Amino acid sequence: MKKIGVILSGCGFMDGAEINEAVLTLLAISRQGATPLLMAPNVNQYHVINHTNGQAVQETRNVLIESSRIARGEIKDINEVSADDFDALMIPGGFGVAKNLSNFAFKGAQAAIIPEVAKMLKAVNDQQKPIGAICISPAVLALLFKAKLTIGSDEATSQIINDLGGQHFQKNANEIQVDEELKIVSTPAFMLNAPLHEISEGIDQCVKKVIELS
Amino acid sequence: MKKIGVILSGCGFMDGAEINEAVLTLLAISRQGATPLLMAPNVNQYHVINHTNGQAVQETRNVLIESSRIARGEIKDINEVSADDFDALMIPGGFGVAKNLSNFAFKGAQAAIIPEVAKMLKAVNDQQKPIGAICISPAVLALLFKAKLTIGSDEATSQIINDLGGQHFQKNANEIQVDEELKIVSTPAFMLNAPLHEISEGIDQCVKKVIELS
Repeated sequence: MKKIGVILSGCGFMDGAEINEAVLTLLAISRQGATPLLMAPNVNQYHVINHTNGQAVQETRNVLIESSRIARGEIKDINEVSADDFDALMIPGGFGVAKNLSNFAFKGAQAAIIPEVAKMLKAVNDQQKPIGAICISPAVLALLFKAKLTIGSDEATSQIINDLGGQHFQKNANEIQVDEELKIVSTPAFMLNAPLHEISEGIDQCVKKVIELS
Repeated sequence: MKKIGVILSGCGFMDGAEINEAVLTLLAISRQGATPLLMAPNVNQYHVINHTNGQAVQETRNVLIESSRIARGEIKDINEVSADDFDALMIPGGFGVAKNLSNFAFKGAQAAIIPEVAKMLKAVNDQQKPIGAICISPAVLALLFKAKLTIGSDEATSQIINDLGGQHFQKNANEIQVDEELKIVSTPAFMLNAPLHEISEGIDQCVKKVIELS
């Protein structure tokens, strides 16, 4: 049975992982008869947003603890996981990827990925294991890998991918972009305004493809 | 296009709505070509649990605000929604249903549903609109309606349903129980230890059936 690592970045798209994308990733993994290995960095979120009005609130929340709500407690500190422990890696989107796992939301092409996540991504790539990136995650991957990627059709973000030496391809929510050489698969998900079942199709294909490449 | 009300009870199964069940409900609604109308009571959670260790923490969180993380901000205070506004109602599970929407987790057969939720459930039933109940939600519905229900196979909980004058039927995660007369449909979801894609099948059937009955 294949084991699929899943990096979460909190719980809620404005300050953490996009919840729908995270669950649809777990659903796709289950459908493929694989097992998820959930992980998150044990760091505080960049901030906490009230999702009813988009305003930041004076609270501190931890990425690992909030992510465990999606994971039903079955989650590890990313520092306690090795790339040896799984066959492929998935990264659901949400602003958590751009605010907690990196500072991409604030620095764009000049952003950095936090050390524990960058180390994991490099180790997975070094072992030639596939990575599936959803929503905004492909743009963050572009900081490390000059890959063929999609984040849907957003011009500013696709320009950053191209500026970083990657290649952006426009795709629909129910489609994937595959970089066969680097074994990086991406799908736009909530970067596009699409019905949830179409987003689910894209994520299903993404998970299926990373398992196939593993 | 049918509109399906969805009552959320927070964000995380130990102190709020079961996140997977909530997302799979939204996915099923999207697949049926229907539109969700999300709502939650504007009340504080009974407590806040760190989902990595199951321990309560000294924090206060609001059910509506936390639910909005799942809803991506598209959610209303249940007091601002009328049963006239939708065609059928879904209630995903999680301890939030038994701790925030009611005190079922503490009082069992002697529990009460909070006024704003009880009022909505009665209004929906009075209008002969269907209700779909997932996981522990059917047991909470049993406080109001003597219905044919399933919560899977848990003996203590099914006994409470029978004690309340309902009728419990044992079902698998990919199955539903239908009370045609009361138009109440239920599926066990995480009350059973089943793979996520089987839980998704049960929720898909539940949503399909409530739309059919509406």
